[in-house]
Amino acid sequence: MSDTTPYVPPKVWQHSEPSGGKFASINRPTAGPTHDKPLPVGKHPLQLYSLATPNGVKVTIMLEELLGLGHAGAEYDAWLIRIGEGDQFSSGFVEINPNSKIPALVDHSGEQPLRVFESGSILVYLAEKFGAFLPTDTAARTETQNWLFWQMGSAPFVGGGFGHFYAYAPEKYEYPINRYAMETKRQLDVLDRQLAERRYIAGDDYSIADMAIWPWYGGLVRGDLYQAAEFLSVQDYRHVQRWAAEIAERPAVIRGRKVNRTWGEAHEQAPERHAASDLD
Amino acid sequence: MSDTTPYVPPKVWQHSEPSGGKFASINRPTAGPTHDKPLPVGKHPLQLYSLATPNGVKVTIMLEELLGLGHAGAEYDAWLIRIGEGDQFSSGFVEINPNSKIPALVDHSGEQPLRVFESGSILVYLAEKFGAFLPTDTAARTETQNWLFWQMGSAPFVGGGFGHFYAYAPEKYEYPINRYAMETKRQLDVLDRQLAERRYIAGDDYSIADMAIWPWYGGLVRGDLYQAAEFLSVQDYRHVQRWAAEIAERPAVIRGRKVNRTWGEAHEQAPERHAASDLD
Repeated sequence: MSDTTPYVPPKVWQHSEPSGGKFASINRPTAGPTHDKPLPVGKHPLQLYSLATPNGVKVTIMLEELLGLGHAGAEYDAWLIRIGEGDQFSSGFVEINPNSKIPALVDHSGEQPLRVFESGSILVYLAEKFGAFLPTDTAARTETQNWLFWQMGSAPFVGGGFGHFYAYAPEKYEYPINRYAMETKRQLDVLDRQLAERRYIAGDDYSIADMAIWPWYGGLVRGDLYQAAEFLSVQDYRHVQRWAAEIAERPAVIRGRKVNRTWGEAHEQAPERHAASDLD
Repeated sequence: MSDTTPYVPPKVWQHSEPSGGKFASINRPTAGPTHDKPLPVGKHPLQLYSLATPNGVKVTIMLEELLGLGHAGAEYDAWLIRIGEGDQFSSGFVEINPNSKIPALVDHSGEQPLRVFESGSILVYLAEKFGAFLPTDTAARTETQNWLFWQMGSAPFVGGGFGHFYAYAPEKYEYPINRYAMETKRQLDVLDRQLAERRYIAGDDYSIADMAIWPWYGGLVRGDLYQAAEFLSVQDYRHVQRWAAEIAERPAVIRGRKVNRTWGEAHEQAPERHAASDLD
C-alpha cells in the first residue's frame, strides 16, 4: 500500500479486465441478462432460486422453520443457482431479480406469479404470509425490524468488505483489511452486548432477525466464514457464541443449511430440494 | 498497491491508532457508550436524532411527506447528532440505537417510548403507523419492500465502499477504487433499467423505496456525493436522472433535506427542527 508513486484515479472510470481474486469473473459494471434461459418451475407454489451462502441459508432456514410448525403451504422447490458460472445473469433469473443476486423467490399461489428478492424482503414476505417469526405487537415487531434492517445494512461490511479483502482479493491489502476487521469486530460487539441481556436478538422469541443474523455472525464466531476465527478473536464474543451454538442445534437450521449446498461433507449437501425427503 | 514486500496480516488483529482519512476518529472496534449524556426530548411525540447525511435525509423526507398529506401526528423534533464529534456514542444515543449510527427515532405516543433505528426500519415504521407510502396490496407492497431492502444491502458498497475509497481514505488505493466504482456503476444500471419502464422505483406510485434510494443514487447522479459525477459517467443513467430530477422538486424533499443540515448555503440549513416554521 506504500508504493512510491501514488495512484491517481483517471477522470473517467473505465472497465478493464478483472484484476483477479476469487469471484472476479462475476463482477460487472452493468446489469441485465447475459444469456437467454428460462428458470425451471417445480410443483410447489414456492419456487426458490438460490445457493447455500449466508444470504441463501437465511431463507431455507425460514422455510424449514415454517414447515416444522406445520405450515404445509411453505413446501418449496429449491433450484441451484451456480453464481460462479453466471446462472444469475440468465434472462429468467434477471426477470425475478434484476439485481442478479441470490436468493430469489417466486410465489405462484396467487393469480399472478409474484417475485420476491433480497433475503430481508423474502423473510418479511414469508413471515407475513404465514403469520410467524415476526411479532404483531408493535413494540416487539419494531425491535425485530430494527435488527433485521441492521443485518441488511451491516453485513456488506463483513461480506463485501472484510471477507473480500481478507480471503478473496488477489493480494492482501493492509488498509482495507484493517478498516473492515475493525468494523466487523465492532458489529460483533454490538451483537454481544445485545445478547448479553436477551436470549434472542430481539428479545425472548426467536424471529426472522435471528434467521438473518445467524448465518453471517454465527458463521464468523463458529469459524465457518473466511477462516478468520483467530484473526478476529471470536472467542471474546461469549454471548454471540452462546446464541450461535443454540441456534445451530435447531432441526430446521440443520435442514435449511443443506439446501442448495454443493460443498462440505456429502451428507450436508442437497444441491436441489423438491421434497422433505431430499434433506433426510 | 504494488509494494515489493507483500503485506502479511498478523495471526490476531490488533487495534492500532487510526491510519487517517476523514472520519477515522469515529471508527472503533468496540460498541457501547463512551460518555454519559441523556438525549434532549422536545414536545412532539416523535423525536428524531439525526444528521442530514443520505441516511438521515430519508427519514426527514418521509416525515415532511406525511405532514404534507395532513398527518398532524407526524410533527417532530429533530435534534442534531454531530457524528464527527462523537454524539452517537453518548449513553442516551446508544440506548436508542446500540449500533451508534444516525438516524434514530423515539416514538413517545404509546405507553412506553419506542425506539426505532436503521433508516429502513424507521421508514417501514412510519409507513405502517400512518398508512402511507407502503402499499397494502400484496404485489405492490412486496415490490416496494424488494427495493427498500435492495437499497439497504446495496448502498454500503456505495457509501462505505466507493465513497470511502474515492473521497475519504488517506490515500488513493487503486484496487478498492476499481472494485467499488464497478459495483456502484452496476447498481446505477440496475436502477436505470428499472426506471426505464416505471415512473417510480416500485411502479406508478411514489413510495418509501424512492425515499430510501433517492438520497444515495439521486445524490450520485446529481453530483452531490463525492464529486464523482464525471468519474462515474453519471450522465449515462438517463432514467435515473429523470427520476432524480422529478423527486428533487417535491416540496417535502426540499424541506426534508434542510433538517439537521450544517453545511451548504445558509438557507439550506436547519440544524434543528422543532416546528414547521423552522424550515420556511
